[in-house]
Amino acid sequence: MTEMTEGTDTAQAVTQAITARRELVNEAIPQELPIQEPERLYEASRYLLDAGGKRLRPTVLLLAAEAIADVPPLSEDYREFPAPERTVDMMAAAVSIETIQSFTLIHDDIMDDDDMRRGVPSVHREFDLSTAILAGDTLYAKAFEQMLETGADSERSVRALSELATTCTKICEGQSCDIAFESRTDVTTDEYLEMVELKTAVLYAAAASIPAILLGEDEAVGPLYQYGLNVGRAFQIQDDLLDLTIPSEQLGKQRGSDLVENKQTIITLHARQQGVDVDSLVPEDDVEAVEEETIEEAVERLEAAGSIEFARELAHDLIREGKEHLRVLPDNEARDRLDDIADFLVEREY
Amino acid sequence: MTEMTEGTDTAQAVTQAITARRELVNEAIPQELPIQEPERLYEASRYLLDAGGKRLRPTVLLLAAEAIADVPPLSEDYREFPAPERTVDMMAAAVSIETIQSFTLIHDDIMDDDDMRRGVPSVHREFDLSTAILAGDTLYAKAFEQMLETGADSERSVRALSELATTCTKICEGQSCDIAFESRTDVTTDEYLEMVELKTAVLYAAAASIPAILLGEDEAVGPLYQYGLNVGRAFQIQDDLLDLTIPSEQLGKQRGSDLVENKQTIITLHARQQGVDVDSLVPEDDVEAVEEETIEEAVERLEAAGSIEFARELAHDLIREGKEHLRVLPDNEARDRLDDIADFLVEREY
Repeated sequence: MTEMTEGTDTAQAVTQAITARRELVNEAIPQELPIQEPERLYEASRYLLDAGGKRLRPTVLLLAAEAIADVPPLSEDYREFPAPERTVDMMAAAVSIETIQSFTLIHDDIMDDDDMRRGVPSVHREFDLSTAILAGDTLYAKAFEQMLETGADSERSVRALSELATTCTKICEGQSCDIAFESRTDVTTDEYLEMVELKTAVLYAAAASIPAILLGEDEAVGPLYQYGLNVGRAFQIQDDLLDLTIPSEQLGKQRGSDLVENKQTIITLHARQQGVDVDSLVPEDDVEAVEEETIEEAVERLEAAGSIEFARELAHDLIREGKEHLRVLPDNEARDRLDDIADFLVEREY
Repeated sequence: MTEMTEGTDTAQAVTQAITARRELVNEAIPQELPIQEPERLYEASRYLLDAGGKRLRPTVLLLAAEAIADVPPLSEDYREFPAPERTVDMMAAAVSIETIQSFTLIHDDIMDDDDMRRGVPSVHREFDLSTAILAGDTLYAKAFEQMLETGADSERSVRALSELATTCTKICEGQSCDIAFESRTDVTTDEYLEMVELKTAVLYAAAASIPAILLGEDEAVGPLYQYGLNVGRAFQIQDDLLDLTIPSEQLGKQRGSDLVENKQTIITLHARQQGVDVDSLVPEDDVEAVEEETIEEAVERLEAAGSIEFARELAHDLIREGKEHLRVLPDNEARDRLDDIADFLVEREY
């Protein structure tokens, strides 16, 4: 097998692993969050979940469960997943993580006054501000209900719940830092990475480590948490990179919109530290009005400052470090997929 | 002892019971929710909690714990409350309930666009919209963390957490109904009471029943839940009554403001069912501009329709029904205080 074929096979295996689990998660969402009275509230709560999403976090959770249990991928019913003494509803845990993710998107879109998400209007635009706040609050409670319904023994349930609650606290702290950074020009790359850890990476860490908690595989909890934390950080850096390096058509939004909106990213913060006058890179502040050429020149200056390379290397370092923690798991196919997904997160182009 | 003296003694005993526990809850709040980084987020989260509040729900929780454990009021350290096999941090559970209450107030004030709360600006006015949403979200997570830290055995903790999560879901559903009612003129008193049950009463029910869960007193869980549900319903009806029957100076806001703002209450809904043209009772829609005389006449018409008497009787019926459920508890002083607090909720004038 040539290296290139191997690369293609890996890419295919990752895509298949994500697609298969995404379909199962998509089936489980209406079961876990049925539309009930008051209907408008539940429709708003389901709106973003139904609009799509890659379901990366639940995929990580389900694969981690399979790797820990040392079972062939997709060989077990996630609703009755084999644990030492009883079966565990691993799908309820997976949906719980996606439910938290959806709650944070709804509230973040209000705070950032974003009109669109996943190709549809944001919830506060499609419905209204009050309904969007309440939809987020409802998903928040439902995520805890879902995590309480895995059927794991009480001690493990309490630990999983505790992990979920502290994760939510950290996400709020991270979002608060992100907002505070908007009015500061002296944010360092280290501060930015700490914010990303809180806002984004801890939910990957929870997704990766909670199956170890639920299955009672205590020695895997810490390493899987570190795996999730590192790939979660890399995921955000890749998001920052994609905004600059992928053509607008492929990105589904204007390339360089972070620059237009003066959003701080790991790339602009590094460039600032290198003395680049980041604020003047794209003078326009209307995404519609900006010329492709202006973005092109801005990216060239960021490249010249070494900032794009810095971000790329950082993302790859984090992925490498994250993957090392997988060694705690048995050597099996699910572990290979977790390894591949880590690479996928920094190689993806969407 | 004459009846009047007895009445006064009861009132004093209730006031003392609430005051003593309020002080202890006020001491515990900064311990459970220390101001930490990011400071602005935690300051916003603590803002309403620090502005005051009667702490009725944690008081109910702490008294219920004492009644179940059959210990003299205030004889035990709430942080190390005696349970069959170990001690339980009952104060953490009490603060958890107050934390949920504070989260709902912050988000409700945004939805209702209310400028003031507890004599201070609402959180989204004192800080800003994003900070207020995040402060509520942070309290939400912290309430679950607090309920996880009681030290109760895992099985009981899971049940308490489950109770807390379903309570939060119901509060969201209730608030959603409340908002939907604003644009309807055909809401029935039964629908209104169902909304009140979800929005307000379930948190009293959780406060009353969670100590029974944490102390493993299974047969008391259901009756205490019903006690909380009924007194919680009565509490809201009394709030509706106070707005009409207490002079503005004593109320701390314009008497009849619900009428001015066309807010539906059990009183206006009953009047509407009696054929009263409620919308024309107070033509002004500016609280500042309304004359005391207009309010006076409106109240007289509501009285003539029997709507005020209807609400009073309903509140007292609910209190009577709620109190009956206390019979499941041992006959002790703490149970007497729970009985008194039920009466206090419909006799209070603030």
